[in-house]
Amino acid sequence: MEITQKILDFVMKQEEPVIILDLDIIEKNYWRMQNSLNHSVIYYAVKANSEKRILERLVKIGSSFDIASIGELDLMLSLGADPSKLSYGNTIKKEKHIKYAYDKGVRLFVADEFSEIEKISRQAPGSKVFARIQMGDSDSDWPLTRKFGTNIEKAVDLMILAKEKDLIPYGISFHVGSQCYDKYAWKTALLKVADIFYHLKKEGIELKFINTGGGMPVQYLREIPEIEDITAIINETIIENFEGFDELIVATEPGRTLVGDAGLLCANVILRAEKEKNDWVYLDAGVFHGLMETIQNFRYEVIVWGKNGEEDNFTLAGPTCDSVDVIYDEVYLPNDVNIDDKVFFMNAGSYTTGYSTTFNGIESPKVYYTDEI
Amino acid sequence: MEITQKILDFVMKQEEPVIILDLDIIEKNYWRMQNSLNHSVIYYAVKANSEKRILERLVKIGSSFDIASIGELDLMLSLGADPSKLSYGNTIKKEKHIKYAYDKGVRLFVADEFSEIEKISRQAPGSKVFARIQMGDSDSDWPLTRKFGTNIEKAVDLMILAKEKDLIPYGISFHVGSQCYDKYAWKTALLKVADIFYHLKKEGIELKFINTGGGMPVQYLREIPEIEDITAIINETIIENFEGFDELIVATEPGRTLVGDAGLLCANVILRAEKEKNDWVYLDAGVFHGLMETIQNFRYEVIVWGKNGEEDNFTLAGPTCDSVDVIYDEVYLPNDVNIDDKVFFMNAGSYTTGYSTTFNGIESPKVYYTDEI
Repeated sequence: MEITQKILDFVMKQEEPVIILDLDIIEKNYWRMQNSLNHSVIYYAVKANSEKRILERLVKIGSSFDIASIGELDLMLSLGADPSKLSYGNTIKKEKHIKYAYDKGVRLFVADEFSEIEKISRQAPGSKVFARIQMGDSDSDWPLTRKFGTNIEKAVDLMILAKEKDLIPYGISFHVGSQCYDKYAWKTALLKVADIFYHLKKEGIELKFINTGGGMPVQYLREIPEIEDITAIINETIIENFEGFDELIVATEPGRTLVGDAGLLCANVILRAEKEKNDWVYLDAGVFHGLMETIQNFRYEVIVWGKNGEEDNFTLAGPTCDSVDVIYDEVYLPNDVNIDDKVFFMNAGSYTTGYSTTFNGIESPKVYYTDEI
Repeated sequence: MEITQKILDFVMKQEEPVIILDLDIIEKNYWRMQNSLNHSVIYYAVKANSEKRILERLVKIGSSFDIASIGELDLMLSLGADPSKLSYGNTIKKEKHIKYAYDKGVRLFVADEFSEIEKISRQAPGSKVFARIQMGDSDSDWPLTRKFGTNIEKAVDLMILAKEKDLIPYGISFHVGSQCYDKYAWKTALLKVADIFYHLKKEGIELKFINTGGGMPVQYLREIPEIEDITAIINETIIENFEGFDELIVATEPGRTLVGDAGLLCANVILRAEKEKNDWVYLDAGVFHGLMETIQNFRYEVIVWGKNGEEDNFTLAGPTCDSVDVIYDEVYLPNDVNIDDKVFFMNAGSYTTGYSTTFNGIESPKVYYTDEI
């Protein structure tokens, strides 16, 4: 998202850190995915940014939603979402939460373990279930493969168990890792999914649902493939490898992909301090107040507004009395950066507000929309 | 804190994760410090746990408080704290927040940079200021030395500048690192402080305030020195090295030391899943819901209640769809651990609720007190 004059005029008047979001960019990203992917159903990953106006806009344009908890379920229902458009996409669910979701009308659940299928069969009879498979290591910033997913053999067995338990064995999901740079990771995964589809067809189970997860990258510092580069690979792989399956649904679970480049975070310099190795710059937003993703060195583009000094190496930190609250150990900034400067974190629309705390008695950045500033 | 029968009866009825706190243990820890340290003034570090009942109890027994922000200032004033007992102990302060604190009656501020002294002199005229010095690496779990503090020479210059700016040069603070295992770290630091005191005395500035920070450890897995072992070292070092200073105040800023062993967190197993390397156990509390300190492998004692199987190696994770939400990559648990088991994190009274988020639409553990369960 660009720093427009309007945004600049607004942030210059702010004494606290802010996040600014542009709903039109989110909608544009939605249609780019929807229009370039065959058989597409988009399940927006609510966890990426659960600000109400984002969710309302996506409900309005017909999106489906990937929810991680009954908290997100209640939120979506309160905003008018149709429960038939919700996927309970967390592999880790309490049995009573499955019942709660079923009672509210949710009929689509994920699982990667037998006991989870059993919970779903007890509390959500007749529902559709899909199994999540693990991926190998991919070139992504946040590999999700260790915590979630199972192998191909077990995915097959999970679908067979689902059928035995009178659930609807519906499909397979995977996740290439959040912010994935390699468009062929989707192809590799889809070939595994095809294996499972054909294997189960022989057993009399016809799957329909190919859930390609999230992970399409957003522009930070590294060059990325475009959305259409990735959807083209997905389309092509499915045409070539899923022959004989006529009613396919190709689901995606974009979070960052829809909202990442639809936002920015603007913080203020509180202090510049001379330290032994290099100077430190302290902001009024940090790891615990909007920039949690930097804790594992996730790299935003950082712009110090109006300063044009030669670049020098700084440590950039947040405002709390906590040693973990260091945004970047090393980052190049103009050497004339100083107190009261505005510092922009570009494309910070996702995974910022959601991780916020009030640690140290400090509020997280307030959210504004471009149409209200 | 022990798992008493009363606590057990209570947690067995809970379907969600809980934190249980014992105010009497906090008070006992307070008096242990207060009674064993000469010239003691205890500034409780509000950030360690800012639950109202804890703060109210500490106000009642006469504690002073170390605040990190005007949010914590407002909270303390709302609970009846005397502003003259508050220390604005964050080296990173907005100028307008210094003014706000001064207007509310705060007269004690820290600084580790010249520009911070200048801000204080403009907005809090005549206040007491102390300089924070850096420590070398100490044997602690959370070294705080990189982000905060300056060297001895600059600390001297900061106090001289404070005098020039009509502030009261009041003393020196340090922090040996949170959860510090080496009682001699305090001695090493105090010798540096003594150097500064003598040096400034020659320049006509008599300091009074020795702020020994926090860092006294709480029992998790490693053996620790007792509070009294550490206060004895501090007493002895001060007697031997601060001759000629008659009105000394020995401040401490305990957080974990007062509340760490006054609490526990009890979570529930949601799922046990077979993975390639080892089995994973998923809980309804995790990194983003009470256990943030584990993100850098901070080790609690973990007890799976009522399971006595042989110990095996597990990965322990939280309930969110986030790969960072892994509590421990490797932890030994009874091999019969399973869904619905109660899992206790011992001595989890500090830095749990304060870091909580509602990420993934999941609420953080609710707090209860032993006198209300």
